Amino acid sequence: MTTIDINCDMGESYGAFMVGEDETIMNYISSANIACGMHAGDPHVMERTVRLAKKNRVGIGAHPGFPDIAGFGRRMMEFTEEEIYQLIIYQIGGLQAFCSVHDVTLKHVKPHGALYNLAARDEKVADAIARAVYDLDSNLILIGLANSALLSAGIAAGINVASEVFADRTFTAEGFLTPRNVKGAFIYDVKDAAEQMKRIVVDQKVKAIDGTIIDLKADTICIHGDGKHAVAFAEALQTTLSNNGITIKRLGEK
Amino acid sequence: MTTIDINCDMGESYGAFMVGEDETIMNYISSANIACGMHAGDPHVMERTVRLAKKNRVGIGAHPGFPDIAGFGRRMMEFTEEEIYQLIIYQIGGLQAFCSVHDVTLKHVKPHGALYNLAARDEKVADAIARAVYDLDSNLILIGLANSALLSAGIAAGINVASEVFADRTFTAEGFLTPRNVKGAFIYDVKDAAEQMKRIVVDQKVKAIDGTIIDLKADTICIHGDGKHAVAFAEALQTTLSNNGITIKRLGEK
Amino acid sequence: MTTIDINCDMGESYGAFMVGEDETIMNYISSANIACGMHAGDPHVMERTVRLAKKNRVGIGAHPGFPDIAGFGRRMMEFTEEEIYQLIIYQIGGLQAFCSVHDVTLKHVKPHGALYNLAARDEKVADAIARAVYDLDSNLILIGLANSALLSAGIAAGINVASEVFADRTFTAEGFLTPRNVKGAFIYDVKDAAEQMKRIVVDQKVKAIDGTIIDLKADTICIHGDGKHAVAFAEALQTTLSNNGITIKRLGEK
Amino acid sequence: MTTIDINCDMGESYGAFMVGEDETIMNYISSANIACGMHAGDPHVMERTVRLAKKNRVGIGAHPGFPDIAGFGRRMMEFTEEEIYQLIIYQIGGLQAFCSVHDVTLKHVKPHGALYNLAARDEKVADAIARAVYDLDSNLILIGLANSALLSAGIAAGINVASEVFADRTFTAEGFLTPRNVKGAFIYDVKDAAEQMKRIVVDQKVKAIDGTIIDLKADTICIHGDGKHAVAFAEALQTTLSNNGITIKRLGEK
Repeated sequence: MTTIDINCDMGESYGAFMVGEDETIMNYISSANIACGMHAGDPHVMERTVRLAKKNRVGIGAHPGFPDIAGFGRRMMEFTEEEIYQLIIYQIGGLQAFCSVHDVTLKHVKPHGALYNLAARDEKVADAIARAVYDLDSNLILIGLANSALLSAGIAAGINVASEVFADRTFTAEGFLTPRNVKGAFIYDVKDAAEQMKRIVVDQKVKAIDGTIIDLKADTICIHGDGKHAVAFAEALQTTLSNNGITIKRLGEK
Repeated sequence: MTTIDINCDMGESYGAFMVGEDETIMNYISSANIACGMHAGDPHVMERTVRLAKKNRVGIGAHPGFPDIAGFGRRMMEFTEEEIYQLIIYQIGGLQAFCSVHDVTLKHVKPHGALYNLAARDEKVADAIARAVYDLDSNLILIGLANSALLSAGIAAGINVASEVFADRTFTAEGFLTPRNVKGAFIYDVKDAAEQMKRIVVDQKVKAIDGTIIDLKADTICIHGDGKHAVAFAEALQTTLSNNGITIKRLGEK
Repeated sequence: MTTIDINCDMGESYGAFMVGEDETIMNYISSANIACGMHAGDPHVMERTVRLAKKNRVGIGAHPGFPDIAGFGRRMMEFTEEEIYQLIIYQIGGLQAFCSVHDVTLKHVKPHGALYNLAARDEKVADAIARAVYDLDSNLILIGLANSALLSAGIAAGINVASEVFADRTFTAEGFLTPRNVKGAFIYDVKDAAEQMKRIVVDQKVKAIDGTIIDLKADTICIHGDGKHAVAFAEALQTTLSNNGITIKRLGEK
Repeated sequence: MTTIDINCDMGESYGAFMVGEDETIMNYISSANIACGMHAGDPHVMERTVRLAKKNRVGIGAHPGFPDIAGFGRRMMEFTEEEIYQLIIYQIGGLQAFCSVHDVTLKHVKPHGALYNLAARDEKVADAIARAVYDLDSNLILIGLANSALLSAGIAAGINVASEVFADRTFTAEGFLTPRNVKGAFIYDVKDAAEQMKRIVVDQKVKAIDGTIIDLKADTICIHGDGKHAVAFAEALQTTLSNNGITIKRLGEK
């Protein structure tokens, strides 16, 4: 049986600022990356989202980011590796506490935004994150971009990792994401996107932006939870995968 | 053997803003209340303070407060009880994570500033805090002001509580703290303060501000960690207690 | 000719957190209350909103609030009058600077959220706000709730004030807003709301929630800029006023 | 008559977090760079500092920085030039408002921390800052590091600029600051530091770290307002300059 995990960033509201269609999107995913209060997601939103994920039997993960509400964790900030380690520990800890009172297990960790991008290419940062995850709970699964420094760091640290691809993005011949500012970086057609995902899951291959066919292994597919077409996209992906005999399964589940 | 705990707020620096003489004060206390990032104490400071407390064999407690860096958690903010519960869970969780990676056990919880004062008189808030502590770890000891609603709520919730007095404050005939704006609320003379503490610990009695002698039970004495005289004060208290055969012991230790 | 001002809170986005339908709503209002960075509205949003208001020839006002992004300025916070004065000065100053570089004049000031409500009933707070407005620019018009302490304070301070009513709220026999938790506080029917506004503007009278007819003078009507029905509501109000020969005019315009 | 300005960062406290010896240092400087609320300096501190500078007849300048209280504006953050322009406008505006109510004129602008360093080398950022200053008030003097991109941008924008040196730093043969991580970057001896400053002011020359004598023009000397030796340092500098017939004068004063 072919299986894949589908993950989505959840709990990104902040106080009165509402973001995303969490209640609906929960129906289409197997893993939820929950914001931990520093770039989005105050404690009230965090608990609500843990409760929602539990109710939907969706795997719960921490989604730590740079401490920057105004920037939504999307702009680079300068931190030492020690500080990044501490930012990760703190944010996972906050979410673990909500998991604890709701008697669910935290399953995974996925860095957010600029921290995710930085960890994909910067080995020291990747290592700091991997060590934080290992030190706190070596059973946690670390999600990182396919072929990224973060995955390597996780493996080196002795934790389970999950290779991530994005449902609406293309890849370079080297197996990296096509940079956002390059033409063709995004796939706007829902069917094309779903088709590419199917191929990655079934064949572990993808057609890179230059036309070459490359190997690409994915353990989890990231979809978006906000924007006009989020729900339609999620639905189309689920249908395509299902029609091709692919089962959606939570990370780490057999 | 007569024993008492001495606690102090620690880890109240925030980024480049340095507060308190933590390294020195750690020598005079048995319990450290560590700020959890919302009114003071960023993750870097939190880890540094956990490490310092561990090295000094000082009991580690969480010191959650209102989310208000500019106000240092000292001004009232309006929250529902549910939100207070969530603020407590989140902040304890963040500190627990640092305790976990340093292999020490979180021992107690003491609300900070305006939240502490509110919990002393507001039963619903006190109850929200007590439930949060219980739900997260029923072995935690909840520190509250002597004779406060918070202590009652802790007992009702089924957790161990510790009755707190302040080394430099006087009491009303009802056993409450003399309000700050009342003449005589503070004891500025170090010896007088130490003498009052000795009496509370040995006789479980104190001379109230109106001259009457009242019963007052204390499990822990709070001292200040900043200000010019903090170290001299801590030293004098320790000497007086020691000269009177009182042993300083961490909360919950036998 | 009968005229009225219609105002709306604008520029309430914050970084990536998008709030409101500002571009559309600008077509239905004559005055925009622009958030000043402390409860919403970062500098980027502020300049964008000033530019938008200028393009639409809508009067620009400052909308200062409590410094609390997570709480959107809607929860009470404890400040001295001096601090409130300073919060007002700072926030108006920030917006004035954007007005200055875009060569438009700041026309009015309206406190936001919990600060607005506090200023309606607390004379000292009202006075602090009125003095700040006067000290900074005595030509500014201060918007306050009809019959509120803020209007009285503004008059006492020697500045022009504008009496505000809310398009979707009812009034008590004393001329105050029916509290939100009282049944009948809100008017959900667009036509009923528009009709009540028409009566207030034309007759300076309103039917209070207990059925009595009371005097009520309004210089400006507040409508909402977010929510599903915001645009429909704004449109209906405009139509009703127009059909009754009422012209929408900016505050202070003749 | 030879004259020089001495400037210092002031008003860097934030709420309960106290920084610097502002009251004492004001006696030794002619220009105060006042933090504007985003990396330090809440509105309460801002007004207090404006009042203090006015009382001491010290020139008042805005000291805008990155919006990052925890990082004190010292760590790099990623902003577009448009956003930097807006950050500058907003922060100057907030301080201008306090100057306005205290009837003093804002004299200069000096970016803070990481933004200052970025503006010294990044022409686009320098240009964004210079344009913001020009657009808001073309009479403002822009302080930038000697030989920096910021000074060039200010000149290009048509505003007056002031070339800044740091009292305790050495220079490279190219006239730039010796990087902090290079040995010899700092001058710890008060007399040596004062002597170097005297030479720069009188001869417009300095001995670079490699021993060569280079030209260096300075309009203003920056001293520190916090740290153990701040006051002793300020006093020694003042004495040396005075003994050498150099008068301390505010920027832009004749």
